[in-house]
Amino acid sequence: MNFNYPNGKRYIPKGTVTETKVKKQSNHSYSNRGMTLEEDLNETNEYYRERKIAVIHKKPTPVQIVQVDYPKRSAAVIKEAYFKQASTTDYNGVYKGKYIDFEAKETANTTSFPLKNFHQHQIDHMQEVVSQGGICFVILRFSKQEQVYLLQAHHLLSFWDRMKNGGRKSITKEEIEQIGILIPLGFQPRIDYIKIIDTLFHF
Amino acid sequence: MNFNYPNGKRYIPKGTVTETKVKKQSNHSYSNRGMTLEEDLNETNEYYRERKIAVIHKKPTPVQIVQVDYPKRSAAVIKEAYFKQASTTDYNGVYKGKYIDFEAKETANTTSFPLKNFHQHQIDHMQEVVSQGGICFVILRFSKQEQVYLLQAHHLLSFWDRMKNGGRKSITKEEIEQIGILIPLGFQPRIDYIKIIDTLFHF
Repeated sequence: MNFNYPNGKRYIPKGTVTETKVKKQSNHSYSNRGMTLEEDLNETNEYYRERKIAVIHKKPTPVQIVQVDYPKRSAAVIKEAYFKQASTTDYNGVYKGKYIDFEAKETANTTSFPLKNFHQHQIDHMQEVVSQGGICFVILRFSKQEQVYLLQAHHLLSFWDRMKNGGRKSITKEEIEQIGILIPLGFQPRIDYIKIIDTLFHF
Repeated sequence: MNFNYPNGKRYIPKGTVTETKVKKQSNHSYSNRGMTLEEDLNETNEYYRERKIAVIHKKPTPVQIVQVDYPKRSAAVIKEAYFKQASTTDYNGVYKGKYIDFEAKETANTTSFPLKNFHQHQIDHMQEVVSQGGICFVILRFSKQEQVYLLQAHHLLSFWDRMKNGGRKSITKEEIEQIGILIPLGFQPRIDYIKIIDTLFHF
């Protein structure tokens, strides 16, 4: 039972048998923990919150609800609903009073990161956040190489423009190595992106 | 077909016959537009975004997805899902680089605002945001009087503590008039809370 978002991304429901199955199928050797990028980021964010370092949450998956049953003496059951395309990025929150906003994506490619991982709404949102002075970036994971990069949104926006102007539909690995920042992977927190933000913005 | 969130709040699905019906039932005279507080805030946020004043979004309703059908040649259909309690407030975003976070609630009461409109997770989240230097508040609407107040989170937290220490389970209207700030209602934007933030924080 696999199903996809409108953007073709596979949806992995939580707490179902399917989840375990899907996780095993995609079992990347990433520290042998079989964790997805989303899980690693959720644990990282929990670590930040518990230690009062930052308050960052993943937004819920947007769903268009069509039909709901309301049985007596038990919880409302959504009987028909559809996945909607997100109008923003997935993660946001606050670090030292500053607004933090990012999207996280991974690829099995080894030489480039395809821009089809993003959609126009997210790009527009990132542009708006950058204009409003927010700290905005993407976390890009090369799953086969087990490398995670932080790329500031204004760079992603340039590559998006290059594509819109007829250029390549991806960012090369070399470009990401040059202007992105490699995030060393740890145990706690797993993906310490706040440390990179500190370095970039001298907080 | 009415159904409630776990907290007893009525859920109004978008784009269904039910919505129109529910709206008519609760048709508050509020500028005779029959708008809910959520709709007014969504339009206000759209106004802010279009004019590049601020980038604030409502978070999607959190849903626990249990079963999804993936028919060929058409969109995935969620067949079984449940409403989850939100772990954060409903609205957040960025204004001049600063993190903005708020919850909006309304009451039909005229002399006090019941604290049961909030739940512990939201209170904890507001405490975390305040500690992290974010701008955090609640927008409280007295529907019968058509009055909307902005109350800073640290005040709400004090009232919550008072309740936890055996005090009253609501904030009196007088208290809100004293320490909250009345937001004048307009046409565009409808609930200009950013103007209040400017006044409070001298941006």
